[in-house]
Amino acid sequence: MFDNINIVLVGITHPGNIGAAARAMKTMGLSKMRLVQPKQFPNADATARACGADDILFNVQVFDSYEESLQDCHLVFGASARQRMIAWPVLTPKACAEQALQLQAPIAIVFGRENSGLTNKELEHCNYLVQIPTDNTFSSLNVAAAVQVITYELRMEELKQGNFDSPLPPPVSAESMEQLYQHLEQTLIDIKFLNPNHPRLLMRRLRRLFNRTQLVDSEINILRGILTATQENIK
Amino acid sequence: MFDNINIVLVGITHPGNIGAAARAMKTMGLSKMRLVQPKQFPNADATARACGADDILFNVQVFDSYEESLQDCHLVFGASARQRMIAWPVLTPKACAEQALQLQAPIAIVFGRENSGLTNKELEHCNYLVQIPTDNTFSSLNVAAAVQVITYELRMEELKQGNFDSPLPPPVSAESMEQLYQHLEQTLIDIKFLNPNHPRLLMRRLRRLFNRTQLVDSEINILRGILTATQENIK
Repeated sequence: MFDNINIVLVGITHPGNIGAAARAMKTMGLSKMRLVQPKQFPNADATARACGADDILFNVQVFDSYEESLQDCHLVFGASARQRMIAWPVLTPKACAEQALQLQAPIAIVFGRENSGLTNKELEHCNYLVQIPTDNTFSSLNVAAAVQVITYELRMEELKQGNFDSPLPPPVSAESMEQLYQHLEQTLIDIKFLNPNHPRLLMRRLRRLFNRTQLVDSEINILRGILTATQENIK
Repeated sequence: MFDNINIVLVGITHPGNIGAAARAMKTMGLSKMRLVQPKQFPNADATARACGADDILFNVQVFDSYEESLQDCHLVFGASARQRMIAWPVLTPKACAEQALQLQAPIAIVFGRENSGLTNKELEHCNYLVQIPTDNTFSSLNVAAAVQVITYELRMEELKQGNFDSPLPPPVSAESMEQLYQHLEQTLIDIKFLNPNHPRLLMRRLRRLFNRTQLVDSEINILRGILTATQENIK
């Protein structure tokens, strides 16, 4: 159950939070945890706070690179506590759960650092933000508590559906998307639409556009074909 | 907000859990905590884990007697992790939230000890049980995590119909989309990616892609800018 859903924790400082998140996951039937640059792991505090969810900690995948941790994932949700400067599609936990359960390919739900969450640059890799609607005056949600709420909604959604039918054709992997963005960026430089010395927000805006589209393989092929044809025809 | 809803914690052993519960409550806009026979309170661990929700701890009401802590409450929900021997009406967190918000009089949502929860005798004081549907093989929900889930549902119920949708402006008109497609088609012919005598399904596929993206004005401008730059740079 939920075998394709990866909970990705980025830059966690307090190992106790890793344990508490594992416990939260396990109560809701999830098992796949990934850690990106945890400050301390494995760690006794993590094990203590896991309170019996040791199997999740034992099977954790640890990554040095954020991008690498998402490489095989076809849909990425980034948990974000705050309003961000950049407009990105924002889902409620319930809407996130609905979307997540439609897909049978690997997906990631990403949670950021205790104090600062995910950076804007990290959020740009996400198809959607998911926001737990905290009180305006106090949005300081503990990371394991956030994991608890999101996984609770996954479980409620799964109990509601009772079955998985007619999954959508899976979107391409994050790796394919990165290759597309690199190709696109280079082409935009080639046609002098993007000045690499003054890139402004152009690539971010294009990421926002294509990330929310959930491209499938045949579409990536078309878009990369267009980029290649453009490059071949530049004077 | 939620001024009539009391979160009642009974017989908590670890003061850190009291702090974490206060933090959970505050993120969801609740403020009224009651403690029945806490093992240690006030306590530095509680304050540390409250992480800024000190006002809730400062205003906590501490009771020696369970009955007394509920005396002024008109509706009492008891959180219960397990199936109980006694048949009692059991609500989901969502149903609990719906019921709770119907009443303007003081109500209580009661959470039990870390290891054993509420006793059957304590549950008998409740109008309803509320059960977070944990995985059958691992129901060990941390008490502050349980408070987080229940208060999250209270907040979601309160914000029901509230708008957390994408902060994106409305999509562009069909006319703008047609102009984009014409510009795109001409450019694809210019770079020899599209053969007008054998167009195949290319434009249809691109329409499918961009139609489901629901482009906004600024994005149309970027895309048309890219097309113009491409046309200007063709050899």
